Order: sequence, then structure tokens, then C-alpha cells
Amino acid sequence: MYNQSQLKELVDKALMNLSYDTEAPRLIDPVKYIMSLGGKRLRPVMLLMACNIFSDRINDAVMPAAGIEIFHNFTLVHDDIMDQASLRRGLATIHQKWNVNQAILSGDVMVFLAGDCFLQIPEQNLVRVLRIFNRAARDVCAGQQLDMDYEKAVIVSQDEYLKMIELKTAVLIAASVKIGAIIGGADDKNADLLSEFGNNLGLAFQIQDDILDVWGDSKVFGKKPGGDIVANKKTLPLVKAMEKASVSQKKILQELFTEPEADPEVKVRKVIEVYDELDIRNTTESLAREYISKAFALLRKLPVEEKRKQEMVNLATSLIEREC
Amino acid sequence: MYNQSQLKELVDKALMNLSYDTEAPRLIDPVKYIMSLGGKRLRPVMLLMACNIFSDRINDAVMPAAGIEIFHNFTLVHDDIMDQASLRRGLATIHQKWNVNQAILSGDVMVFLAGDCFLQIPEQNLVRVLRIFNRAARDVCAGQQLDMDYEKAVIVSQDEYLKMIELKTAVLIAASVKIGAIIGGADDKNADLLSEFGNNLGLAFQIQDDILDVWGDSKVFGKKPGGDIVANKKTLPLVKAMEKASVSQKKILQELFTEPEADPEVKVRKVIEVYDELDIRNTTESLAREYISKAFALLRKLPVEEKRKQEMVNLATSLIEREC
Repeated sequence: MYNQSQLKELVDKALMNLSYDTEAPRLIDPVKYIMSLGGKRLRPVMLLMACNIFSDRINDAVMPAAGIEIFHNFTLVHDDIMDQASLRRGLATIHQKWNVNQAILSGDVMVFLAGDCFLQIPEQNLVRVLRIFNRAARDVCAGQQLDMDYEKAVIVSQDEYLKMIELKTAVLIAASVKIGAIIGGADDKNADLLSEFGNNLGLAFQIQDDILDVWGDSKVFGKKPGGDIVANKKTLPLVKAMEKASVSQKKILQELFTEPEADPEVKVRKVIEVYDELDIRNTTESLAREYISKAFALLRKLPVEEKRKQEMVNLATSLIEREC
Repeated sequence: MYNQSQLKELVDKALMNLSYDTEAPRLIDPVKYIMSLGGKRLRPVMLLMACNIFSDRINDAVMPAAGIEIFHNFTLVHDDIMDQASLRRGLATIHQKWNVNQAILSGDVMVFLAGDCFLQIPEQNLVRVLRIFNRAARDVCAGQQLDMDYEKAVIVSQDEYLKMIELKTAVLIAASVKIGAIIGGADDKNADLLSEFGNNLGLAFQIQDDILDVWGDSKVFGKKPGGDIVANKKTLPLVKAMEKASVSQKKILQELFTEPEADPEVKVRKVIEVYDELDIRNTTESLAREYISKAFALLRKLPVEEKRKQEMVNLATSLIEREC
């Protein structure tokens, strides 16, 4: 069995060796830049890990794993334009380092670079994998749309929030492990089971991200806390706070989230004050734990030897134990 | 044999009946809008026509034809953002009617809607078709990059210009007819021959477009003449003019194309004056005619009955006889 760091190395190597062959080098420079910023390579590593559960040969899964990572980074490049984010992993975003037009176009070509990676899958699995990928890609766009829609909404229900993060985050993790399982030779039932596992883990992962944005240690987490609050993002802490708030607390939150001139630091401090009065951290952490439990229960149901699942258990555990 | 208007009807019907099923309707509204603006549906019609040359059954080609049209419109949506174009077929562009973020995201999802169309191709041809499409899509992005790069360049050579329009325009027309031919059952040799035909026709088509921008009748052509001149686009008339210009004419052109404050109408009038002094219209038209001749010669070489090629001959003839 391969462990997480071995798989990450395989992914990084595949990404480094990609042929970015093009008639327009300026198109590809930003792609190489964003792909070199690193990161956990979570989705491709999970794809390979899922493959490895069913097969000792994971070679055929390496290129689609690289494809998933390129696709994921494409979404980051375009999301960063939409969110006007100037930093990504501590360095300038593409639209900041080059310009918006370059970020649009270099993002676009990444979709087809990802497509090239997928087209290297052995033919017997190709169509099935492409259907899963294409559906997930559409869903990710829909999730980003809901995210944008909800920025303007005052109140978002828990169901709406969960649908948004499912589409924006969980679906691609679910698709990654499902694709890995299929390439590893899993039957439909087992591939679906792993997909469900990925979906639940993805939901927990995103809720955890929301929590870290409020209560995370900025040194460990790598970004300034409260970014979601400043950007009026509809996170689970906010959704739960609006549910539990008294009339006066609701009024405070609504004012803070609709006041365009609010001083960011004051806004973040006051919002967190209300969250803490309402014990929102515990409420949201307990929902994250629910999804984690579901994820582990699904993994336990998978009818393969326990030792074949161990790396996936380790990875899932490390994800949800990210330090605050 | 189907004629052009029957094929256009098939394409329009397929596009109208597409399932744009999504969890985020706001994502799809702009897609429906841009797809409803109409147009000649040139690429999908040529795809179906190429299929029809080899087979009386063209059913299997209808969905990929729709996919090519959606992809083409995706490029228009993103190009319009980059070019800051406010009108498309006489109506507001998506970024103008909604906003830039919406145009980025709705453009993105169109790639995957196109992908869904391609995934309906019978499996025996799917991989081959997807490879052709994916390569063409990468090339179109590279062509747009060169277009952007050359806006800032003062002088662009004829070779650079031809490479740019090949990537940006001809490659997708070539891919369309090649995909149609393959689905129609053509062998590799004939599919490549049609692809070459499409490439040459695409080059002639783009040069014709450049000519129409300068000397076209705005009533027939549907847009104000001189748009390319105002936008500093490197068109064939400009490339040839810079080649043929005297020292003083070159100076005039260089000043007109580098003066950021130039009055657009004066700029257009003065540039056309130089073009006319240099007989640029004849020079460029004769290059367009060269590509048309090559295209027709390739079509003649295709070893099928003449009557099976007749619709393609008609369409190619009508394209290059667009009124000035």
C-alpha cells in the first residue's frame, strides 16, 4: 500500500512532467505558476488512495489524478477573480500577478489540459470516468453560483448552505474517490459507497474550513481569520448563529453583514462575539462530527480487508484534526 | 442529402431541447440567453454536412454538433469580456447584461454542457472525437492568447497573423468537419482531407471577416466598420499594409495605432485611406482566394460522388461570397 506522502509525490511528479506544449507560451506561464504553488493535493491523493484500496497497480490512476488537480486549480483561478482575492497560498493570484483577462484565459485552458489527462485513461473505463467528472464539474460551477447568489442574501437556511458546500466542495471529492475506485476495478456498489464516503468527508472538511476561518490559528491556517466574515460568505457558523440568535443578536448580525462601510477588523470582532455568546463553535463542530461519523461508517461497510483501508482512514483522520 | 437550412434547423432544435438541468438556475439563464441569440450555426452545420457526405444517417452527429456550438459560444462569452465588447449579434453581451463574474462562470459551465453533448456519441468513436475536440479547444485558447499578445505588438508578420487565425478560427472548423466525417464512417485519410479543407476554408473565412470589417456594408455585415482598427487588432489588411507601406505611410500607421487618445472615427478614416493608397483590398482578397482554391481542390480530391459534396460546395461558396 502507498501512504499519503508517497501518493502526493506521484501526483507532484506527474504534474511536473506534464507536457504543456503550446503555440502561445504566455498562456501557459500562469498555469505553471499556479500549479507550482503546491498544496496538499488532497483530491488526487484521495483518487489514488481509492484506487489502491482495490488494486496494487495504481499507474492508470496517476494521469486522471493530475487532471483532477488541474481542474481544481482552474476553479481556484476563476473563483479568485470573482472573489477579488489577491493571495493564494500566500502568493499573488494570477489576476493579480498578470491581469483579469490572463486569469480568465489561462483558467480556461486548464480545463482542456485536465481533459488531456483524462483521455489517457484506459478505454474500458474512460466513458464512465468522463461522465462522473463532467457531472462533478457542472456541479462545482453550480456551487460557485449559489455561493455568489448567497453573498447577496441576508439569511440562508442550513439546507441551502449544505447544498451549496456539497456542490462546491464535496461533489469533487466524491467524484475523485469514485474515479479512483473504478480505475482500481471496484464494482458499482463499492464505487458508490466510496463516493458517499467522499461526499460526507467533503461536507465535514468544508464545515471544518468554516470553523477554522473564525477560530483558526492564523499561523497554522495560513490566512488571516475572519476572511469569510469580511466577504459576507454564508458559512455554517453564520447560518447557525442566525438560527439561534435572539431578536437583538439577529439585529446586530444583520447590521454587521449589510453595512458596506464596516471596518473589517471591528466587523470580525463583533461577529465572533455574537458567535461565542451563542456557543456556535460547539454547534458547528458537532455537525462536522456527524458527517465524519457517517463517512467512517461508510468506509467500515466497504467489504475489503481493513489494512487496505488504513491509509484512507489515516488521511480522513488527519483532515478533520486540522489544528485550530 | 440534407441542405444547409435543414441542418441548421436540426442544430437549433437540439440546442433548444438540451437539458440545462441544474441546482442553480441563475447559472443557466445567461447560457440560454446567449444560445438564443442565433447566428449561422456554421460549425455544427458543417459537422453535420461532413457526416452526411459519408452517411445518410446523421443522427449520431447531432449532439456533438450542438456541443461544438456551445463550445464556440463559450469562447465568445469569454472573448467578449476580454475585448470589453458590449454587443454580440446586436444585443448586450453577458458581462454587460449581467456582470463579469456571471459571464466568467456561465461561460465555464458551457464547457461542461458541451462535454455532456459529446458524451452522447456512440462509444466506438467517442475517444477519437474527444481527442480531436480537446486538442482544438486548447488551440483556440492559444489563438486567443496570440490575439491578446499581438494587440500590444506594433508589427506582426504575415506568418504570425496566419498562425493566430489558424488557431483561433480555422482549427475549430477543421475539427468540426473531421468529427462529422468520423461519425459518418470516413476512414482516416478522408477525415484528414476534410479537416484540411476546413482549415483552409477557415483561414479564408477569417481573412474575409477582416476585409468586411474595413470595407463591409455595415447594414449587411451587422456591425460598424473599423471595429478591428479601433481595437488595434492585427488583421491581414494591417499586416499587408505594414509590409507594403513607404516610410511615411508606415509612420502614419504606427502613429495611428499607438496613439491612445485617437478619435476612433478619424483613426478609422485615416487608416483606410492608407489601405486604399496601397491597394490592400486587392492584396488581401487575393490571399483569401488562394485559401479558397486550396479548400475546393481538397474537396475535389475526396473520393466520393460529386453529388454528395454538393451541399458543402454550396456552403463554402456562400461563405466566401458574403457581401461587402
